Amino acid sequence: MPRDVLDLLGDALGDALDTGEAALEAAREDRSGWRGEHRPLAVVRAASVADVQAALRIATETGTPVVPRGAGTGLAGGAIASRGSIVLDVSRLDRILEVDEANELAVVEAGVLNGALNDALAPRGYWYAPDPASRAISSIGGNIATNAGGLLCAKYGVTREAVLGLTVVLADGRLLRTGRRTVKGVTGYDLTALFTGSEGTLGVIVEATVRIRPIVAGDVVTIAAAFPDVASAAAASAAITAARVRPAVLELIDAAALARIGEYLGPEAVAGTPLEALASGEAFLLAQCDDGAAHAEAAVVAEVIERAGGRTTVSTDAASGERLLDIRRAMHPAIAARGNVLIEDVAVPRSALPAMFRAIEEIGERYGLVIPTIAHAGDGNLHPNFVFEGDEVPAEVWAAADELFRAGVALGGTLTGEHGVGILKRRWLAAELGEDSVELQRGIKSVFDPAGILNPGVMFDPPA
Amino acid sequence: MPRDVLDLLGDALGDALDTGEAALEAAREDRSGWRGEHRPLAVVRAASVADVQAALRIATETGTPVVPRGAGTGLAGGAIASRGSIVLDVSRLDRILEVDEANELAVVEAGVLNGALNDALAPRGYWYAPDPASRAISSIGGNIATNAGGLLCAKYGVTREAVLGLTVVLADGRLLRTGRRTVKGVTGYDLTALFTGSEGTLGVIVEATVRIRPIVAGDVVTIAAAFPDVASAAAASAAITAARVRPAVLELIDAAALARIGEYLGPEAVAGTPLEALASGEAFLLAQCDDGAAHAEAAVVAEVIERAGGRTTVSTDAASGERLLDIRRAMHPAIAARGNVLIEDVAVPRSALPAMFRAIEEIGERYGLVIPTIAHAGDGNLHPNFVFEGDEVPAEVWAAADELFRAGVALGGTLTGEHGVGILKRRWLAAELGEDSVELQRGIKSVFDPAGILNPGVMFDPPA
Repeated sequence: MPRDVLDLLGDALGDALDTGEAALEAAREDRSGWRGEHRPLAVVRAASVADVQAALRIATETGTPVVPRGAGTGLAGGAIASRGSIVLDVSRLDRILEVDEANELAVVEAGVLNGALNDALAPRGYWYAPDPASRAISSIGGNIATNAGGLLCAKYGVTREAVLGLTVVLADGRLLRTGRRTVKGVTGYDLTALFTGSEGTLGVIVEATVRIRPIVAGDVVTIAAAFPDVASAAAASAAITAARVRPAVLELIDAAALARIGEYLGPEAVAGTPLEALASGEAFLLAQCDDGAAHAEAAVVAEVIERAGGRTTVSTDAASGERLLDIRRAMHPAIAARGNVLIEDVAVPRSALPAMFRAIEEIGERYGLVIPTIAHAGDGNLHPNFVFEGDEVPAEVWAAADELFRAGVALGGTLTGEHGVGILKRRWLAAELGEDSVELQRGIKSVFDPAGILNPGVMFDPPA
Repeated sequence: MPRDVLDLLGDALGDALDTGEAALEAAREDRSGWRGEHRPLAVVRAASVADVQAALRIATETGTPVVPRGAGTGLAGGAIASRGSIVLDVSRLDRILEVDEANELAVVEAGVLNGALNDALAPRGYWYAPDPASRAISSIGGNIATNAGGLLCAKYGVTREAVLGLTVVLADGRLLRTGRRTVKGVTGYDLTALFTGSEGTLGVIVEATVRIRPIVAGDVVTIAAAFPDVASAAAASAAITAARVRPAVLELIDAAALARIGEYLGPEAVAGTPLEALASGEAFLLAQCDDGAAHAEAAVVAEVIERAGGRTTVSTDAASGERLLDIRRAMHPAIAARGNVLIEDVAVPRSALPAMFRAIEEIGERYGLVIPTIAHAGDGNLHPNFVFEGDEVPAEVWAAADELFRAGVALGGTLTGEHGVGILKRRWLAAELGEDSVELQRGIKSVFDPAGILNPGVMFDPPA
């Protein structure tokens, strides 16, 4: 008689196996505002790569689904327990194994937090560029599994551009190394890029070799600008790209989002910032220029903004620049303080930003919803936020989100710029990619995961 | 009775079908110094995407192998006719379909030459960064199929980082679109990156959406440096990376290569350049700094070079900088003028450059071969050159190349930095990647090309 999965896991993993109430409940959630229906069979808190391999060997033997999980900060339900699954948590794999300054790379375990890596690099004069807003709480492995973006992508690239190689545990427990420690290398297919953004559906990332960069020298110039409405702010941000300058940061915050940030921060924190001087209905654009060309670029940015009807405040010291960025960073807590929140993530070509903001406004009016929106305007990625009460996303929010995705795709964009497909967006996958592409992608998944045990239901519809 | 492949192609393609002697002979070669044993059945010079689709539909129906080919400038035998194949030449697909400055992208057909795209972009103030030394003669589609590198990769990235989306004709003639026009986008697996560097084994690239950049503003500072030997030049280039500066160009030329370049250019062209002042056995390092930080960076580079024992010549005007780079660009014609040449392409972590140069020297001595070598030192990519007489690469050259590849891989490097695996390097694929990786990659190929008609024998061993 075959032995029970839990017995096998217990024998192989000892203390790393957690079947306690708290662990099983916690695995039902991430930061998406979604709560899964099912508890997992068990949570495995792997303490070593060997633990990950053992768990996957047992999963393959027993046909048990596995949900790989890092810091649990996903925004698309990509690491939430599914029915009868083992949640394979790699957050304890949190060692920085190597920092190689001469070759501008670091080797880290998957559970290392993005912020922790940067804290370790800063005293050496280096940094890791991918900069999701969640960097203090999200892990490098999770950033890679979702190909995370962030605030700096137009200038410094997305996660994929910072990953040189990976160590991955395959569905059957074998260890696979991809990529290399060199800047260039074209031997075989680019499996590193294939795993980047694969959301735990092809293997479990346990280690990564990532590119690091020397900290950017020179002044940082920050420009805050108020606009009478979001349309003119969006037009200004598109005009900045068209003016051939590339600020490191270019963030747009609409009036509904600003109102919530103001309430959340309170009058004391707002005093003395450009936020204080905003009139009702005004939108806010925040640009930051760095490196040797900062001052020259900032002058162009300010000129474009003023021509587009914005009022600018320029700051050339790093500390006051950081205070301006803190306004942006307060967005998620400010929204979350009001209820549960579904954060959307469409991205459009930068010239389509004004049209996408119009579409959001129109959809909000039609559904009677306020949709506070923030955009990484420098790269065309928008986060419209839906706030709701209770555990379930209400039907009219899904309906509005559906229209919003379709509007983004119709403008030449994508339904997810940086959060991933997860469970929450898989129903729109074929609408964006087409059936042929989805069929090929399912074929690739079958090569890596013939039994279909890796994160079933994430990215693709689960088997019927 | 099934109709003959040539009849079917003739009916479907008319004038696009070429079975003339000259076309069939030309398809046996690329620029690798290798000449294939077989003529193809036919060359199809596709005049439209529909022609590519028709050829592939017929190939699938009849089980005929297809060798996709662009400008024919490959260096690894990846587009050479195989036995009984249709060579599918896309070089006539040479239209620039769109330049979208506001979104910093261009849409081009696969046959557009890299240099032609840059010529079209320059008057608008934009450029396309991937810069293989062959840019005047190689096509964007071929650059993508090999994930081409070039001189600027440490600072401006390889081809993969410049490709946003592709249109690909699949083995059965269906059209697939991958990627998007946005900076970010994570819906589904990254098929764009998977096709980039796939050497015609997964589909035929017919169109690409590529990232363009504003032309870099500010002075360009060029530093030429002479070193008493290649070891000190290699140590200096590794020290430049370690000094946290990132020149746009950092090229190293050894004494054997310099001697050939000097002979090829002749005393008149050499007069007045730093080449004239070189003593026998000296090596040459060429650095170019650009953007707002050029002067500050160049000062650091010059200091590092002088500390490492180099004599510098600094040039701050673009024209004399270009003359210095022309010395580098004369390398390939200078070597080719002496016989047939096998250009190798190992890449190593940058700190391993001195060790790799030592290995090349040692291998050369052991085999009694002079191996003139040039390196993209900024990214650790070396091109050791083997010159030989006649059509066949001599056995001792292959034996020396074999040791050279193994030395590169043992130093943490790769057997091909930018040229691709093609036919010529497939025998070393598993030595670098491991059997598990090769098995998975063959699995991916089967998903896209179940009948195995796309470029059989390239990248992977042909079916027995």
